[in-house]
Amino acid sequence: SRSINLAVIPGDGIGQEVVAQGLKVLSAVLPQDVKLETEEFDFGAKRYHATGETLTDADLDALKQHDAILLGAIGDPSVPSGVLERGFLLKLRFAFDHHVNLRPSKLLPGVETPLAGQPEIDFVVVREGTEGPYTGNGGTIRKGTEHEVATEVSVNTAFGVERVVRDAFARAQARPRKKLTLVHKNNVLTFAGHLWTNVFNRVAAEFPEVTTDYIHVDAATIYLVTDPARFDVIVTDNLFGDIITDLAAAVSGGIGVAASGNINPSGAFPSMFEPVHGSAPDIAGQGKADPSATVLSVALLLRHLGYETEAVRIEDAVSADLAERVGKPARSTDEIGDALAVRVAG
Amino acid sequence: SRSINLAVIPGDGIGQEVVAQGLKVLSAVLPQDVKLETEEFDFGAKRYHATGETLTDADLDALKQHDAILLGAIGDPSVPSGVLERGFLLKLRFAFDHHVNLRPSKLLPGVETPLAGQPEIDFVVVREGTEGPYTGNGGTIRKGTEHEVATEVSVNTAFGVERVVRDAFARAQARPRKKLTLVHKNNVLTFAGHLWTNVFNRVAAEFPEVTTDYIHVDAATIYLVTDPARFDVIVTDNLFGDIITDLAAAVSGGIGVAASGNINPSGAFPSMFEPVHGSAPDIAGQGKADPSATVLSVALLLRHLGYETEAVRIEDAVSADLAERVGKPARSTDEIGDALAVRVAG
Ligand SMILES: CC(C)[C@H](C(=O)O)[C@@H](O)C(=O)O
Ligand SMILES: CC(C)[C@H](C(=O)O)[C@@H](O)C(=O)O
Repeated sequence: SRSINLAVIPGDGIGQEVVAQGLKVLSAVLPQDVKLETEEFDFGAKRYHATGETLTDADLDALKQHDAILLGAIGDPSVPSGVLERGFLLKLRFAFDHHVNLRPSKLLPGVETPLAGQPEIDFVVVREGTEGPYTGNGGTIRKGTEHEVATEVSVNTAFGVERVVRDAFARAQARPRKKLTLVHKNNVLTFAGHLWTNVFNRVAAEFPEVTTDYIHVDAATIYLVTDPARFDVIVTDNLFGDIITDLAAAVSGGIGVAASGNINPSGAFPSMFEPVHGSAPDIAGQGKADPSATVLSVALLLRHLGYETEAVRIEDAVSADLAERVGKPARSTDEIGDALAVRVAG
Repeated sequence: SRSINLAVIPGDGIGQEVVAQGLKVLSAVLPQDVKLETEEFDFGAKRYHATGETLTDADLDALKQHDAILLGAIGDPSVPSGVLERGFLLKLRFAFDHHVNLRPSKLLPGVETPLAGQPEIDFVVVREGTEGPYTGNGGTIRKGTEHEVATEVSVNTAFGVERVVRDAFARAQARPRKKLTLVHKNNVLTFAGHLWTNVFNRVAAEFPEVTTDYIHVDAATIYLVTDPARFDVIVTDNLFGDIITDLAAAVSGGIGVAASGNINPSGAFPSMFEPVHGSAPDIAGQGKADPSATVLSVALLLRHLGYETEAVRIEDAVSADLAERVGKPARSTDEIGDALAVRVAG
């Protein structure tokens, strides 16, 4: 018989509320014969304040025992900027080698976009997750003086770039339009830019059916608001991916519905799935948060573990739920979760 | 008697066409007693192909003799990516220490935006121009092999950050709303982020009337499409500024109307003014390019040289011209230039 052994990290702010709905829908969608086991972890601001710990080696060992990780949100204004980001979120991505950061953008029927004319949006960004300016390389001299110098080093390796580019080509190949766009800034960041461009062109030769193009990151932000329909799959660097996926989420219905996966395709470590939105402390505990992004992250999690039918069932349920919201009064986090659980079970 | 000694760089693609209109409007707006002298320089793809040169020391000496520089566009697909960008555009910015890269975004009446509901947009981005990941620091080892490593180093100095932050505070102080937003990614790029944040907070103490806030660059792209009215003045790093100003241009009417100044406030070297759009080789020579962005760059140039009345006259003319376009057939580059020249002279 089959089983899913899930690590659950509700985290801070609205994390608790939305993860509860994600688990509700997950239980509802799974066939009877799949045994779901969950273990909850208390990472986040509260634990940091109590113990000073963000993510220990023992924590990593414990997480490693699971098939996948579902995360709500980590971050709180009471913790200095960078502590939980570097000490937990990025530490986990690096420790578990989550090099494929998958962020689909699809404008679903009935969902409002800030763009005029309700354009067609259905693309996925494959963001590199373990290199670029996110490595923490760099430093500071003469800190706090008028002679301070601070550096940040973007590290890019053929190994790291090739594996994520290859993953993106495979995803493009599997989609109807079969189109892959490389986003970088190779006219200015020429060292990293040449590496990315050369690797991209080399791997392209292995995927003759995939149409390719290249866009500078600055121009990509223009296309994302003037012609988002031109994108199918995008592959890009860690920092550019961070920036354009927030914009992509905004134009395709907002971070209330943006899901993401931090994936280690080799399976050597569990992959982690989380909504793109943060902990939103301003609305925490009020039942106002939209759990759709978390529920869609559960769909990505299921797809990653091989439960394609169930993943599609969840995506269809969220889509139908969003379409029915138009003109109706707002529902609570819990009510939306209940409605989705009913739909996927149905 | 007064005089303006202008270096003119038409450059590539549509550069020639739009610069001609910029000069037409400049001549028309200047009072009789101001003597305008122009010297044209042939930088760009053609010269590069003929001589291999992009910008020599002698060129820099020649440019230095002028009060300001007006540039159309540099860049052509026949030149490998990076050659003209690093060899001309960035070389000039660094050589003349253009550390204030000024990019106003104003949605003018009658101008279409890709955003729904025609929001109010009137902000200016002060982008640092001589540091960050644009310094060319970094390198490549084992190039072309599977063990290649390429690095890009973002260099940030207290000196460099403070002068641009101070400039931005002064600009915010001079505007009615007096609001300044720092855009960075200080939760991940913690070395540079701390420097930027600390300098920002220190300088803020000198400008008690200016309201300040901080936004991560990824979140900034969301606000630029969902709530652009929240911005008044933004100060940011070179790369973040590159990215968000293209997005800012897109939401506030497109790069057809986006002007910019590469400013050395000390006056030690001439400042350079250019439209944000590139050389657009696909429409070059067809009289289709909108010269408004170049004409608005001439307004920035005049303001920089102390001709405030004339700058405002140009901005009002462009605004009126754009408002009158609605529903009318498209005019040629030349016709728009003529119309603007008539307006500013009037
Ligand atoms: C919180 C932060 C570390 C993170 C990132 O920059 O990757 C977030 O913005 C994201 O996109 O997941
Ligand atoms: C062409 C390129 C070097 C330049 C930049 O990145 O600064 C351009 O994108 C700009 O914004 O002026």
